[in-house]
Amino acid sequence: MVSAPLSGISKDYKERLRLWIRMLRAARSIEAELRERLRREFDTTLPRFDVMAALYRTSDGMLMSGLSSFLLVSNGNVTGIVDRLVSEGLVERARRNGDRRTSVVKLTEAGRAQFKAMAAAHEAWIGELLAGVGEDDTKRLAAMLKSFSSSWEGHE
Amino acid sequence: MVSAPLSGISKDYKERLRLWIRMLRAARSIEAELRERLRREFDTTLPRFDVMAALYRTSDGMLMSGLSSFLLVSNGNVTGIVDRLVSEGLVERARRNGDRRTSVVKLTEAGRAQFKAMAAAHEAWIGELLAGVGEDDTKRLAAMLKSFSSSWEGHE
Repeated sequence: MVSAPLSGISKDYKERLRLWIRMLRAARSIEAELRERLRREFDTTLPRFDVMAALYRTSDGMLMSGLSSFLLVSNGNVTGIVDRLVSEGLVERARRNGDRRTSVVKLTEAGRAQFKAMAAAHEAWIGELLAGVGEDDTKRLAAMLKSFSSSWEGHE
Repeated sequence: MVSAPLSGISKDYKERLRLWIRMLRAARSIEAELRERLRREFDTTLPRFDVMAALYRTSDGMLMSGLSSFLLVSNGNVTGIVDRLVSEGLVERARRNGDRRTSVVKLTEAGRAQFKAMAAAHEAWIGELLAGVGEDDTKRLAAMLKSFSSSWEGHE
């Protein structure tokens, strides 16, 4: 997103706009590189990786609704991705303990093993793509992003 | 994107991964809020806003191919958006000076006026959404994002 200069906007706004544009560009470029590497190295997509990452965090499995809201993508997309992962033996549907009506989805052993390999590569790629950020700057930047996120995360 | 902790990954990688996840979350949340406000206040979408922002920067108009690569979206999407903007009288197709074969797209006067109003609101929203970032932090963060972007922008 790029905005042309407009008169009558305060300098403060301008600097925050510049920050936002740089952040968006950085995020989009890194994301594009990750997509390409996931495709090339693991023949997979970023949404698939995200679904598997979310499921990897719980051994109990997740409700489809919980998975969707965690991922901030539409239920329809998640359903298609999960169906595909099930057909490949990487995800299974299971009943939640003692509740016959509620179905959860979870990684199979094969799914956990495959995700673990992808996650290790993904962490190394991030390390490489952000290699230009020194150790101190990494911490400072992460802390800033954490502190300012609180100002809009509660936004209605 | 969320990754579960994995053993055997160096601490350095971990911290860059944390930075990346925070940056991605911040960018996605702010983007979602901007999408919602553009829809509510201007009955428009972020891709439409981006196309108009790109066209606003040039008074001569842009080639469709130039517009697509500038926006990093597929030509198909841009074509649909431009067709719609043309039908609404906000964008027009024109011949480039002295070249009868080459068609460029540009904002009409109505398009420029509408974009100007949206861009002013957009800048104010960013100012508000990033209000929690102090003036010094804004500059420092923007400088960091600029300097580390150079380390992956040249990436093959």
